Amino acid sequence: MRVYMDNAATTRVTEPVFEAMRPYFCEIFGNPSSVHQFGREALGALDRAREQVATALNADPSEIYFTGCGTEADNWAVRGAALQLSKKGKHIVTSQIEHHAVLHACGQLEKEGFEVTYLPVDEFGLVSPESLEAALRPDTVLVTVMLANNEIGTIEPIAELAKIAKARGALFHTDAVQAVGHIPVDVKSLGVDMLSLSGHKLHAPKGIGALYIRKGVRIRSFMLGGAQERKQRAGTENLASIVGLGAAIELAVKNMDEVSEKVTALRDHLISRLLAEIPYTRLNGHPTKRLPGNANLCFRFIEGEGLLLLLDFKGIAGSSGSACTSGSLDPSHVLLAIGLPHEIAHGSLRLSLSEENTMEEVDYAADALVGIVSRLRDMSPLYEEFLKERGA
Amino acid sequence: MRVYMDNAATTRVTEPVFEAMRPYFCEIFGNPSSVHQFGREALGALDRAREQVATALNADPSEIYFTGCGTEADNWAVRGAALQLSKKGKHIVTSQIEHHAVLHACGQLEKEGFEVTYLPVDEFGLVSPESLEAALRPDTVLVTVMLANNEIGTIEPIAELAKIAKARGALFHTDAVQAVGHIPVDVKSLGVDMLSLSGHKLHAPKGIGALYIRKGVRIRSFMLGGAQERKQRAGTENLASIVGLGAAIELAVKNMDEVSEKVTALRDHLISRLLAEIPYTRLNGHPTKRLPGNANLCFRFIEGEGLLLLLDFKGIAGSSGSACTSGSLDPSHVLLAIGLPHEIAHGSLRLSLSEENTMEEVDYAADALVGIVSRLRDMSPLYEEFLKERGA
Repeated sequence: MRVYMDNAATTRVTEPVFEAMRPYFCEIFGNPSSVHQFGREALGALDRAREQVATALNADPSEIYFTGCGTEADNWAVRGAALQLSKKGKHIVTSQIEHHAVLHACGQLEKEGFEVTYLPVDEFGLVSPESLEAALRPDTVLVTVMLANNEIGTIEPIAELAKIAKARGALFHTDAVQAVGHIPVDVKSLGVDMLSLSGHKLHAPKGIGALYIRKGVRIRSFMLGGAQERKQRAGTENLASIVGLGAAIELAVKNMDEVSEKVTALRDHLISRLLAEIPYTRLNGHPTKRLPGNANLCFRFIEGEGLLLLLDFKGIAGSSGSACTSGSLDPSHVLLAIGLPHEIAHGSLRLSLSEENTMEEVDYAADALVGIVSRLRDMSPLYEEFLKERGA
Repeated sequence: MRVYMDNAATTRVTEPVFEAMRPYFCEIFGNPSSVHQFGREALGALDRAREQVATALNADPSEIYFTGCGTEADNWAVRGAALQLSKKGKHIVTSQIEHHAVLHACGQLEKEGFEVTYLPVDEFGLVSPESLEAALRPDTVLVTVMLANNEIGTIEPIAELAKIAKARGALFHTDAVQAVGHIPVDVKSLGVDMLSLSGHKLHAPKGIGALYIRKGVRIRSFMLGGAQERKQRAGTENLASIVGLGAAIELAVKNMDEVSEKVTALRDHLISRLLAEIPYTRLNGHPTKRLPGNANLCFRFIEGEGLLLLLDFKGIAGSSGSACTSGSLDPSHVLLAIGLPHEIAHGSLRLSLSEENTMEEVDYAADALVGIVSRLRDMSPLYEEFLKERGA
């Protein structure tokens, strides 16, 4: 049995999305900037996809800019806003649990003379509106807080945070890469100025993203060159993938209620079995304010790496955190931020589900985990010590 | 008849390339950074594609970094090298006829305190080694000159230029977006430190590029975030498109002699018919040091825009210059740099051929052009005036 439970790392392109993209490789292949019929056909498809993305977010098509990935959208938003507004002020507020695409963009700006405040989060991973209020300064030009965390799935109170930031004259950006297509995302009710998304987290292909920039907001370009995307983002438009993103986001919004209900049921069954059947297990993230597909747990006394290896051996694909930082031996910055000690953060597992998973797969994974965790604990000196101490 | 002669703007994905990519959407869809079997399958494909690209350029796979497009590769190389070396010096040398992805990256650096020398070109669009020699200064940290021009197809003497730059301690980057897959490109015999390429100019899809960075050369990252591409370029790898680029570049190199011979014959037939049958016509670019598929001509007394419209009406897709600047009313910076006066530069046409074009199509286009140019001149006050003056 092969069970894919790493949908937060990337999703499978579904057949309807692939079929939508398919003509745009070999048949309708013009450059959307070309003025002949091959170009016009391509431009028509580009316009339709832009409308699909805009509709999904309750935005205007003129507010949607396609990028090469979610990381580019995050880099562009953070860097573009900060540099555009640097004469007004050089202070940025973000959270400790952002994706590295935001954190490293902020880190680079620090080297260039900006100051960055990293808001702490509570045990569930929530940023508090009060902490944002307290962090804002007259020279704060940008606040960037993610809509949903990629590791623990916590959904942040973005509408509240954006309101506070804007009342104090700062632009508000949200990295919605993990949220779009999975929970309702409406740029107007969120009240954000910028929002990043990525195709491959919602069954569109890898290598396509988008940045929403509210009409009237002006930020510096990140990709410089040709006059594409209304002169804001250079580079020939990635037509087939853009069409795929348009189709995928339309489908995701159309089926959201049904999919969300199904995936939430799978997730809750998984989490409750693991919490009930494996002692010394902790759910990371918020119990209810979380992405439908996200289950993130810590199993005390064991190493996440061994866990993943044995799961993989049984055909189950999970992750210990973000795929973007795999290879790193450091514990997740997100788990540390919610207050886990190093040794517990090391024993974490993220299983991220999609509508393609089944209850049978969930039970297979839960059964496997019960056995694997027990086996690993039997070999764990930490567990032995714990039992001795408890016995004593 | 529909005749596509705008291959310098973008190419059709060919069927073998599409078939190579196809499994990587719905079947092999893992994130190459994931540590489970889905990830390992993806990583295997990524490694193979990296080898294909490296082999095509005579580079080592560890010197190839995938990017979202050619523009990103150019932006990264220029900005990354300049900022990395800014303590050593703040002078950059480039040419007047670079793509805007290089020119605008240089322009932004000028705003940040760098000085940029824009080398002139001769009537054929060639940069002279002497002019580079004269422009170099002790504080020159980067020289960036394109391998082949996107508008007029001129192939620059990169090996000579790179040798001069490196003897004076500057890094050398070449934008080879139009060259790779069309003429032999060997990073070692060219002696360059960095080289940009783009998939969609060689029958791979849009939205994928690569930057070659010679081993030992260290430049600042452009895309910041996750640890992908050996921590040099963040963002989930665009697996399907990378596989497509690998397949396309391998095919292009394998068939290069045959394709080049065929396309050169088509091009030369087209150019010689147009020069012979349409008076007051000029070939732009070098007669022999030019890309196999590039024909760029000026027809005096007419506007390029009208020409394109009437060609399009006959199903023929050409362009007046770069698709990246379409919509602009300014004449091409490349044509001005080779010394054409504004009014002549306005009447330019680029027809860019590929191996998918036929001699029949070339004759169809030539026949059409003879009629169209004659018709437009009949309506041209400039032509009328010219005839009067000549008659007088």
